[in-house]
Amino acid sequence: MPDQLSVSIIGSGNLAWHLAPALDNAGFAIKEVYSRNPKHAEALTERLYQAEVKATLDFSTSTSTVFIIAVSDDAIEEVATEIILPDEAFLIHTSGSQPLSILQFAAIDSIGSFYPLQTFSKDKRIDFKTVPIFLESTHPETEKIIMTLARAISHHVRKIGSEERKALHIGAVFASNFVNHMLTLSKEVLQKNSLSFDLLKPLISETIAKGLTIGPENAQTGPAMRGDMEVLDRHLEFLQDDEAIAEIYKLISQHIIDRYQQE
Amino acid sequence: MPDQLSVSIIGSGNLAWHLAPALDNAGFAIKEVYSRNPKHAEALTERLYQAEVKATLDFSTSTSTVFIIAVSDDAIEEVATEIILPDEAFLIHTSGSQPLSILQFAAIDSIGSFYPLQTFSKDKRIDFKTVPIFLESTHPETEKIIMTLARAISHHVRKIGSEERKALHIGAVFASNFVNHMLTLSKEVLQKNSLSFDLLKPLISETIAKGLTIGPENAQTGPAMRGDMEVLDRHLEFLQDDEAIAEIYKLISQHIIDRYQQE
Repeated sequence: MPDQLSVSIIGSGNLAWHLAPALDNAGFAIKEVYSRNPKHAEALTERLYQAEVKATLDFSTSTSTVFIIAVSDDAIEEVATEIILPDEAFLIHTSGSQPLSILQFAAIDSIGSFYPLQTFSKDKRIDFKTVPIFLESTHPETEKIIMTLARAISHHVRKIGSEERKALHIGAVFASNFVNHMLTLSKEVLQKNSLSFDLLKPLISETIAKGLTIGPENAQTGPAMRGDMEVLDRHLEFLQDDEAIAEIYKLISQHIIDRYQQE
Repeated sequence: MPDQLSVSIIGSGNLAWHLAPALDNAGFAIKEVYSRNPKHAEALTERLYQAEVKATLDFSTSTSTVFIIAVSDDAIEEVATEIILPDEAFLIHTSGSQPLSILQFAAIDSIGSFYPLQTFSKDKRIDFKTVPIFLESTHPETEKIIMTLARAISHHVRKIGSEERKALHIGAVFASNFVNHMLTLSKEVLQKNSLSFDLLKPLISETIAKGLTIGPENAQTGPAMRGDMEVLDRHLEFLQDDEAIAEIYKLISQHIIDRYQQE
């Protein structure tokens, strides 16, 4: 393992925005930031001590040892194909859904993945210490390197296989992206009727507290769970101006009915 | 207004389970509890100081002044039709979705609604002071009575019309019932792959904290939001054993794509 790990970051999206400063603050020198959009790379370097914007994916003369791909999942293959790495580089991706093998396009052995299970947005501070990080590598030295990086920034580090990681990612889509979308639709319904979303905050907090305490499968309530078809019909009538939202209301309600009314 | 408000509760479900003791502890005497299932009524009276189980809906000789219907929404009409009230009774329902007018079947003027916007489960303690309560009555004296009851148990009391209340209830279905269902599906995906749901707790907490801070419409992340069709396809393939869950994944993802990719 090199004495000092220096790092280059490929990507400047939500994850890179939080990960690069976390590594930087933990004492790993972030030397370079590459982004398809140089302005975004520039903005990220301004959050770092001494990083420079890298204009291309040719890192052949880079002095970094670790290269972290933090781009969207569908761009990883292209980056892995195009990147030119120095000798003895370690290449890591940060995707929940991509297998390790996608990095084979980079034609080096020292590959691994480093998946932080959290939702990142640029304008919301995050305490990386609380973010679970899941590691994968078939290469022992690379695993050590990733473990070193991960443990320096998070208290919750675990090894995981590609299939398990995919399940975790799908679970995260339901628990985060879809939960958030339900909140978005809820807010819309309220706003269309001149009601403040703030009115729902105690309900939302209690829903989550209850789900995490007694388990969501034991915490379900509401008209669909009770099989109250009259209420469902009235709600669908109320939502009839927005076909898409009515369709979501219908499908999820039906799924809840099927599950709880059959018991 | 009567000098002392005494109350009878019709219903013994999740809401009655928490509401009756809250009123009782606030100093309103709960005299009677009626439930279709007498055992449930019995169990609820055991949480109260001096309440008795009422075997029928004939309250003509009751000494209570306030009658609170806390049954499921689709049973209210039947209760309102069958209930026999003493003179000068006040009749209140607690439904989010039913209009005030459903109580007209009881053939008295003093009707109102009292809607606590929260998710209640019998085995989860709730601090009623934090529960927003929404009131409606077209009868001034009844409104005063409901206001007195509501303010005694909650810090957040507001008047609302039937249509607004319905919008609020639909918003609550998305923000609570559907959010909880997303957590249930998430837990299932993880458990099927021998992963603990606990791994997602930091993600879930952050998702909610972020949604409530910067607004859910500004907090969305994930493959659908990025329009990453490859990841969506891989996830759907992974979920192919469960048609229902795959259908939900597909519909919500498509809705997110339509919303964020058009912008």
